[in-house]
Formats: sequence, C-alpha cells, structure tokens
Amino acid sequence: MTGPGHQPADDLRTLLRVTLEALDAGRRDRSGPLPAGGPAAVRQATLDALGPGPLLPRTGDGEAAALGALTRMLTAGSADPADPFCAAHLHCPPLAVAVAADLAVSTLNPSLDSWDQAPAGTTVELEVVAALAELVGFDPTHAVGTVTTGGTESNLMGLLLGSHTTGQAAIRSRARGRSGPRAHHGRPGPRAQLGRAGRGGSAGPVPVLCSAAGHHSVRRGAELLGLTKVVPVAVDAAYRMDVQALRAALARHDGPVLVVATAGTTDAGAIDPLAEIADLVRSHPAPSWLHVDAAHGGGALFSRRLAGRLTGLDQADSVALDLHKLGWQPAPAGVFLTPSRRGWSRLEAEIAYLNPADETTAGYTSLLGRSLRTTRRPDAFKIAVTFRALGRERLGAMVDACHDLAEHAAHVIADHPRLELAAPVTLSTVLFRYVPAGTGTGTGTEEGTRLDRLNAAIRSRLLDDGAAVVGRTTAGPEAAVHLKLTLLNPAATAADVSALLALVAATGDRIAAEAQP
Amino acid sequence: MTGPGHQPADDLRTLLRVTLEALDAGRRDRSGPLPAGGPAAVRQATLDALGPGPLLPRTGDGEAAALGALTRMLTAGSADPADPFCAAHLHCPPLAVAVAADLAVSTLNPSLDSWDQAPAGTTVELEVVAALAELVGFDPTHAVGTVTTGGTESNLMGLLLGSHTTGQAAIRSRARGRSGPRAHHGRPGPRAQLGRAGRGGSAGPVPVLCSAAGHHSVRRGAELLGLTKVVPVAVDAAYRMDVQALRAALARHDGPVLVVATAGTTDAGAIDPLAEIADLVRSHPAPSWLHVDAAHGGGALFSRRLAGRLTGLDQADSVALDLHKLGWQPAPAGVFLTPSRRGWSRLEAEIAYLNPADETTAGYTSLLGRSLRTTRRPDAFKIAVTFRALGRERLGAMVDACHDLAEHAAHVIADHPRLELAAPVTLSTVLFRYVPAGTGTGTGTEEGTRLDRLNAAIRSRLLDDGAAVVGRTTAGPEAAVHLKLTLLNPAATAADVSALLALVAATGDRIAAEAQP
Repeated sequence: MTGPGHQPADDLRTLLRVTLEALDAGRRDRSGPLPAGGPAAVRQATLDALGPGPLLPRTGDGEAAALGALTRMLTAGSADPADPFCAAHLHCPPLAVAVAADLAVSTLNPSLDSWDQAPAGTTVELEVVAALAELVGFDPTHAVGTVTTGGTESNLMGLLLGSHTTGQAAIRSRARGRSGPRAHHGRPGPRAQLGRAGRGGSAGPVPVLCSAAGHHSVRRGAELLGLTKVVPVAVDAAYRMDVQALRAALARHDGPVLVVATAGTTDAGAIDPLAEIADLVRSHPAPSWLHVDAAHGGGALFSRRLAGRLTGLDQADSVALDLHKLGWQPAPAGVFLTPSRRGWSRLEAEIAYLNPADETTAGYTSLLGRSLRTTRRPDAFKIAVTFRALGRERLGAMVDACHDLAEHAAHVIADHPRLELAAPVTLSTVLFRYVPAGTGTGTGTEEGTRLDRLNAAIRSRLLDDGAAVVGRTTAGPEAAVHLKLTLLNPAATAADVSALLALVAATGDRIAAEAQP
Repeated sequence: MTGPGHQPADDLRTLLRVTLEALDAGRRDRSGPLPAGGPAAVRQATLDALGPGPLLPRTGDGEAAALGALTRMLTAGSADPADPFCAAHLHCPPLAVAVAADLAVSTLNPSLDSWDQAPAGTTVELEVVAALAELVGFDPTHAVGTVTTGGTESNLMGLLLGSHTTGQAAIRSRARGRSGPRAHHGRPGPRAQLGRAGRGGSAGPVPVLCSAAGHHSVRRGAELLGLTKVVPVAVDAAYRMDVQALRAALARHDGPVLVVATAGTTDAGAIDPLAEIADLVRSHPAPSWLHVDAAHGGGALFSRRLAGRLTGLDQADSVALDLHKLGWQPAPAGVFLTPSRRGWSRLEAEIAYLNPADETTAGYTSLLGRSLRTTRRPDAFKIAVTFRALGRERLGAMVDACHDLAEHAAHVIADHPRLELAAPVTLSTVLFRYVPAGTGTGTGTEEGTRLDRLNAAIRSRLLDDGAAVVGRTTAGPEAAVHLKLTLLNPAATAADVSALLALVAATGDRIAAEAQP
C-alpha cells in the first residue's frame, strides 16, 4: 500500500521517478512552449488523458499509472515558463532547488496556524520575514510579516491593516477633539485602544488612492472590505503615478486615506516615485497608510544595479512582494511586510484549539494572527532554502540577466520598422505593438480598431500554433491593444529574444497580408 | 548552474535525491512524533540549522548543501502527521502519490488566472470541481466551484456569494414591492440584475446564523466582509446545531439571512442535521443562503458507511470541503462548490492582461472569476491524480479505517477509570479529558480550574517530551479544557491508539502525583 503513515521514502522515491519520466515525456510531446491547436483541442486532449468514465472511479488505476499518465498530460498541456518563447506573464520558471524544497514541505505537511503543527516551520517563517524586511529596509527586529498566496492577498492585507489603523486613529483623534498629523512610522498606539471593540473602524469609508496602472487586486480588495471609494490617480507617459495628481487627490481627500503605490506595474513594469509619494503621504493632515505593491518590482532589491529604483520603499507602512515572480519560486510565494506591529491587532484571535493564551505565554508561538488563512503551508521554507543556496549575488545576477534581456528587446523593437515600443524598460517587461507598413499615426477609430484586432490576432495565432506565449494588454490613452514580453527567464539569450520578436513581426506581416483583399 | 530555463530534469533528479536523504536523516534525528525539548529548544535548533549570519547571505552555500541541511532541520523539527502519536489536528499524513503529483505542478508552475498560463490545468480544475460536485450530490453540469486554500477561504466565499445574492434578492423584492420566499436552488436571476452596479448589496447587514461549535473562520470571514452580526445558534449535547434554536433564530430574523451549518465540527467532529436545517432555511420568508462547512466531514462522502451522515448536503447553496483533511492531500486542497452560477457574478472581472472579452469568447477560458486570488497554483492536479489512482473505494476504506480507530479510542476511554469521553464519535475525532481518581463530579470553580490545568499540563508535557501531539480545546457548558485525538492516519493501528491513550493517562497520573503535597 502506498498510503500515508508508512515511512514514505521508498514509495515516494518510486513515484518521483515516475513523475520525472512523465515530465520528460510530456515535454517531448509538446515540442514548443505550449500545446498547439487552440483551446478546444487542448481541452479535448486533456479530457482524453483524464480517461474515460468518472474522474473519481469506483476502483482506481493505481498510483504509478495515474501519476504517469496525468503528469505527462499536464506537462504536454502546459505553457512552460522555462521555454524562452513563453514570455506573457509573471509566472517564472522555478528554481529546481525551490521545487525540491517544496517537496519536503508537501511530504511533512506542516501548517502554521499552531506551533504543534509546525514547530520548526514557525521559526522558518519568522526568519524569512526578518530577512525580507531587512532587504526592504525595515528594521528586522520590529518588522512583522507573513508569506501569502500572492500580491492579491498581500494587497488585501495592506488595505485591511491600513483601513483598520487609519479608522482607529481617526476615532482616537475625534475622541481627543482634534485632528493632527499622525506620527509616521509611529510605534503602535496603546493596545487597549486598538482592541477588538474598535474593529468597526476598519469598515469606514476610507478612500483608497491608487494609480490607474495599479493592479486590479487593489480595487477587488477594496470592494471586498467595503472600501468602495477607489480614487484613480493619473500616471505619466511612463505609467508612473503622477505626483502632482496625487498631491491634488490628497488635497481633495483631507480625511483618513490609504495610498497604494506600485513598484513594478503589471503592464509596463513601471515603478512609482516612492520617495516623493512617501513624503506626500507623510505630510497628509489626517491619518494615512502607504501600501506599496512591489509584487513585481520587489525582486529588483536583489540587484545592485536596480535596487536604487525602489528608493523610498522603506518608508511604506506595508509592502507586498512576490517571490514567485522575480524570485523564481514555484507559486505561491507572496510576502506581506510591515515595519512594526501597527495594524496587526485587526487579525489577532485567540482560538481554544489553536492558541490558548497560556500556551502562547509559554512560548508555543502560533502564527494564526499573521494571516487571513487558518491552515497554512510554510511556503517560507522554499524561500529560506533558496536564499541560503544562492545568496543575494546569484539572485541579483538573475534579475540583471532578465533586465538585460528586456533592454535588448527594447532595442530590437526600436530598430524594427513595424514594431513600436510603448513604454521604457524599467524591470523586465517590454510593452509594444505591431504596426503594419503604411499605417498612419494611429489616429482614427477605424484604424485603431484595425490595429487592435491585428495585435490580438498575432497573439492568438502564436498561441494556437503552439509557437509562442506573448502577453496582451491595453495601453495608452485610447486603451489600445498592445503586446507584452515579460522576460523572467534568466537562461534565455538575447538571440532567443531576437528570434521571438522576429516571429511576432513575421506573424504580423502574415496576418496583415491575409487581410489584404 | 541549477537555474531555471534549463530542462531541469537532471538538476531536479539530483536535488530530489538530496531531499529524500535529508527527510530520512531528519526522521532519524527526531525519533518521535515531534522534536523534544519544548518551544525554546526547538527554536534554537532551527536557528542553528539556518546557519550563522544572515539568512540571505551575499554568496550562497550552493543548492545541495542548503537543501540538505535545511530539509533535515525541517524534518527533525516537524510534528509529523505520519506518526501515529501525532494526532492533534486535521493536518493529515499526505499520500505519496499526491506529493509526487504536486511536484509536477511546482516544476511547471502553471497559474489558473489565465488560459495561457495553464492550458491543461484549467480543464483539470473544471473536471475536479465537477467530480466533487457529483460526490456532494449537485448536478455536475450546472455546479460551479474552485479549489481554495482551505475551509477558511471557502467559508469566506460562501459568505461573499451568499450575502451578495441575498442582498440582491432583497433589493429586487423591494423593487417589486413584495417580499416572498425565493425559489430555492432557483436558476440564476436575469444577469442584467446581478451586474456590478448592485455589488453594494453584498455589504448589507445580512445576519449570519451559525452554531456555537462552528469554525472560527465563519466569524472572521463575516467580520472581513462587514457582516458584523453573527448570531450564535445553540448546540445539543453532541455539539450538533439545535434545530429548535435555529427555528427560533430564523423567526427573530425575518429578513435576508445566511445560515452556516457544519458537517464535522473542529472539536468534536459533529455533523449538524443538514436535511432539517435545509428545510428550515428553504421555508424562510425572505432571501436566504445555506452554506455548509464540510471541511472536515466532507471526506465521509468517500465512505459507503458514513456518507449517509451527510444527507441534506446536496440542498446547500454552497459547500466547503478540505481534501487536505480526510482526503490525504498535502495542504492546500480546499474546495468551494455551489450547485449553480448563482452568486458568482460577485467575482466576475474582465482584466485586459488576463481575460479580454474576445479571447474568452474564443474559448480561452480564464478561471480568474472563480477565486479571490489572482496567481493560483492548480492544486486540483494532485486531487485529480489521487482520484484516478485510488478510486472511491480505497479513499472510502481509509476514511473507514480512521473512523474505526476513533471508535476504538472511544471504547478505551469509556473503559478507563480516569479518562472521560466528552462527545460521541461521529467521524475520526475523539474529545475527552483526564479526571484523576478522587475527583468529584466536576462542580466547583476551584476543581474545574485544577482539572483544566491538569489537562493542559498533560498536553504540554507530552509535547515537551517529544512523545505525542495530542490536541487541546475547550468543551462543555463551562468551556473546560479537554484533550482531543484527531485520527487521520489510516495506517495507525488500534494498538497504537491504545498505547497513545495509555501514555496520556500515565502522564496524567504522573502530573497528578507530582501535584500532591
């Protein structure tokens, strides 16, 4: 029996061999960055591999047979970020060492909601949080944080702690009959004032100021928390938050505010001017909270060349990082950090079966109050192993390699007669589009629609051919369809990138020619 | 270089060997269900293994060295659910086949928020959801669902969809100038009425009725969504929701309501009378939503012997399951299911870089609208492999084995002069406490406090000795400290369980004797 409870080493060894062989076989089946044929064909192939009859049959096929067949199917049916022509999203090719570390976690199945489910795992997460806090520029002895499912959860936590804190501060200010600037990065207020009785403060209508290029999860998180007023702040031509626009927005909203800045926008990789934003937020006359969504750009902290672009990040009240982007972890490896305990009372809970007070006092640390989840796998472990294995220099070199690839892509695009760069390269994202010969300056609705369709068709054609995964989004004042390369594969070469862009252009030429009468 | 982008098979093969050897070495280091010495000693050992200097050094130690050392540390420092004496929580010993399947996911790093990050993974999740819907008793062709991080997220989603739907229905009723019973399990209303404009409906003060034995995440989720009124419903002596109490609560709250029933309470494994509750909710005169938290008890559906205890589950408006409990998956493997599309409009979003409308129309399915997350690992894959590998019969046999162990434990406790059973066995949880010889009937605050301390001390002593992980919670009208066995290891034997209970009793005897003057 390959059941649990046995020392699983032998079973697991055999089954891992099956997995690795199926990964190899599936890659050979695919022979490109993604399966060819388009979504209907891929769906049918997946269903065929899942087998006839119900997915949960009365009697099973046995471990090796099911594992081998389904792993081969998943591999053949994947858009593999380890292929240089798979460059559409911020899902990275993960490091083998992180994948192997995560296997240990799967095998041991610890959970961070109580000490007795993760005696060592608890300390590992605390240490990973401290290391990342130091990287961000927070004092690691005071910083608090958690490993999350990603930027979406981290942004939600930023809004949650921020709205709780600013709401509480506003209540305290009103109680004192005055409204003055809060102490920025102040120590937490008296705990008695921040207790559960005041939780209603977090549901107040605190407006959220975020650039129009911020991630959609900011709006979604605000809606979830009932912070219905999300105020979009304009961006400059490089998709960075416009500081003058923020100043004006802050002047219009002179009560408590949350400001969300972005370090690495999803579409352009742009980094908002964090230091200037922090200054503005600090001088706001009412309680405020600055959350920085550095899910994409936080990886630049590993790089000596690029870390300076995040100057001001250490002035944030909370920060989101994602090490499953520029950190080469298998998802999820999100991180949420704050410089102090401020705001965390919102999540505190004493639950009889998890963290009774006397056990907490006795040192059985429960991380229940660090997360919106209860059961929580220590995704921190793969991060810890990666950090010890590679060190900052190798991680920084990987970031630099991706940045180099993006710079190369930008030059190729700038030199190409039918490719048009839409934003400067900041990190490893390249935003551009194909503009066929003979196109005007892009004015006119009809021409815009034609260009939109053409660029959308380039991407679909490449997907359906199984030839490349190129990203798509909208950009510019007219929300025109653009293409995007997210270059997260440091093992890709400049030649790979040149070839990918040549393929994009040739596909555009072909589709444009087909469209001729 | 063991970096990403290479065909990782060879690197990964080597590193997996390192992982397996370190798992073996760490288990030998531990030589028990958890590390001995108590939290301070475990913390120091973990810090020592993380190495001197910063966790993120300038230059790393190399993959094999870091992976081997840290995996050995994590293993030695784990409370291993594969050990029969580790029986405190609902984290299970995972199946080797599920662990191996999850490795494939880590390697390929797909994400379900857009088709082009998970072409096959998208279909896998849809098929797993359909299979689980069928297991629950929903029509799999109409059911909708998602794989979640666990019961906490699933419960939040139930509250979110439920409050949105009941709020919307109440708004529609008022608009029509009447308030009648809704059609239970009705088809979704006209989409135009459920659009985004009405989202504010979800923030309404819909009360949440949930038994006092329900999971803490219900209250936490309600607070997050601003549904501040959580009405506790009394339980009977077996910790099941009292139907008369629910009837009275529904009579007091004659507007829109959410009712959360529990199939498998955390502390006693009790299953609320689902069919009777569903009848009551159905006859409520205002819009209502019944969410069933079957995170623990849902596993009984695999068992012919126990599935009948969940009769009525198919009448729910939403259901939470956790296959990282009685499903032997490595966490996370939560599931959220609904019988129809009703409520899901709350999560719909069209995002330019993920799911532009024309691509969705063309069949590039994005599961973005199925989740509160954006990046989302297909945890469905390990479930799919497990289902195909084991079939329902083997999974059912595992559930029955755990149930047998719990019944055995209950008999041992009932026959023991100093152990006292606190609830009947329903699933695989055994709630009990140690009562020393010469104790009265448990009345009197002083005696109650002494018993509480004694039972808490038994657990701590066993933890600090590295001898056993026994659960702890409060139970009964006086919230007395009790001990708990959660028997999720089907490879454990009745002899193991007898020995564990004998150890608990002997530890109680020893501590009671030490307390004598």
